[in-house]
Amino acid sequence: MKPAHASKGAATREVIVARALEISAERGLDALTIGMLAEATGMSKSGVFAHFGSREDLQLAVLDGAAREFTEQVFVPALRERRGLPRLLAILERWMQRTLADGIRRACPIGAAAVEFDDRPGPVRERVLGYVLHLRREVARAVQIAIEQEHLQPGLDAHQLAFELHALMTAFVLELKLFGPEAAESRVRSSLARILGSLATPAAASPAH
Amino acid sequence: MKPAHASKGAATREVIVARALEISAERGLDALTIGMLAEATGMSKSGVFAHFGSREDLQLAVLDGAAREFTEQVFVPALRERRGLPRLLAILERWMQRTLADGIRRACPIGAAAVEFDDRPGPVRERVLGYVLHLRREVARAVQIAIEQEHLQPGLDAHQLAFELHALMTAFVLELKLFGPEAAESRVRSSLARILGSLATPAAASPAH
Repeated sequence: MKPAHASKGAATREVIVARALEISAERGLDALTIGMLAEATGMSKSGVFAHFGSREDLQLAVLDGAAREFTEQVFVPALRERRGLPRLLAILERWMQRTLADGIRRACPIGAAAVEFDDRPGPVRERVLGYVLHLRREVARAVQIAIEQEHLQPGLDAHQLAFELHALMTAFVLELKLFGPEAAESRVRSSLARILGSLATPAAASPAH
Repeated sequence: MKPAHASKGAATREVIVARALEISAERGLDALTIGMLAEATGMSKSGVFAHFGSREDLQLAVLDGAAREFTEQVFVPALRERRGLPRLLAILERWMQRTLADGIRRACPIGAAAVEFDDRPGPVRERVLGYVLHLRREVARAVQIAIEQEHLQPGLDAHQLAFELHALMTAFVLELKLFGPEAAESRVRSSLARILGSLATPAAASPAH
């Protein structure tokens, strides 16, 4: 069992990260400062500073938090679905719902940081790259299982399709901000239906399979 | 014939817009100020101000300039290609080359402004929306001609495919910044080949058609 002060420290850190996640979802990772977080949590700057050695450590913690949240909201619940196309569709559905919930005012801090830090080499950019690759690999794995289950055509390049699905979900974020949730959702659903429809095997449509 | 002072004024305005285009391609539309442009062109602030009544007018002129540049570099030369799939492919090829030329340090000011101004209603956002819709319509028109020429399958939704192609080219910009030009180009070319290959008619492959 951890000593009480350590678990209290961990709980405080969690509160700070949760608040930091909200702020960077609304304003980007660059907007985040230790002073702003102190104000938002009602702590002193040195209090916040004690949990994060630097602004960069704080930014990395936000990226870790955002990735954990995505995994918990998208990938973990999709594991309850049948292996193959149903699980891939569940991932895409939950991803869409998450984007719709973010709406016009909020955005995934990892996606935002991919743009903000694209020309700034360093640990933040490395962490962003790592999470983008991780996301891409998880989607490719779901595609690969759907191929193995004979729900998607054999010979399909799983990583290439994962790139295309990621491109579509990224376009969804911008489409939503430009044209509103209804038009954007209709566009992305039609594209998913067209793309996956053209790649599905006849067996995928059969519920008995 | 215009009086000499009017054409001199138009030429000066062009010089300012060209410099403003460079700055906003590197740093976004938000980074642009009349003071910064005065310094970059060696003019006085009031000199720059005489050509643009406000910072917003300047931003709108940059968007107009970026759209004109895109049309001249992408759509106009593609008109020399045969109507149908060859012309659509020429548009996509020139669009890719433009993105590759922008590379890691530069980006299309309209695309950047779509993100920067997504939550700020007003004339700049309206202009961005107008140009995104215009781009989408021009691509949809090229798709529609390819359907009419029987190069792409009948019954295809031209606007939906235009959205997907736009999504892919937007993803290309981010992919390039994250993973470098070679990996990004290979990804986007494979996707275009797969998507258009699956939608092309047998006749499109025949050079005699």
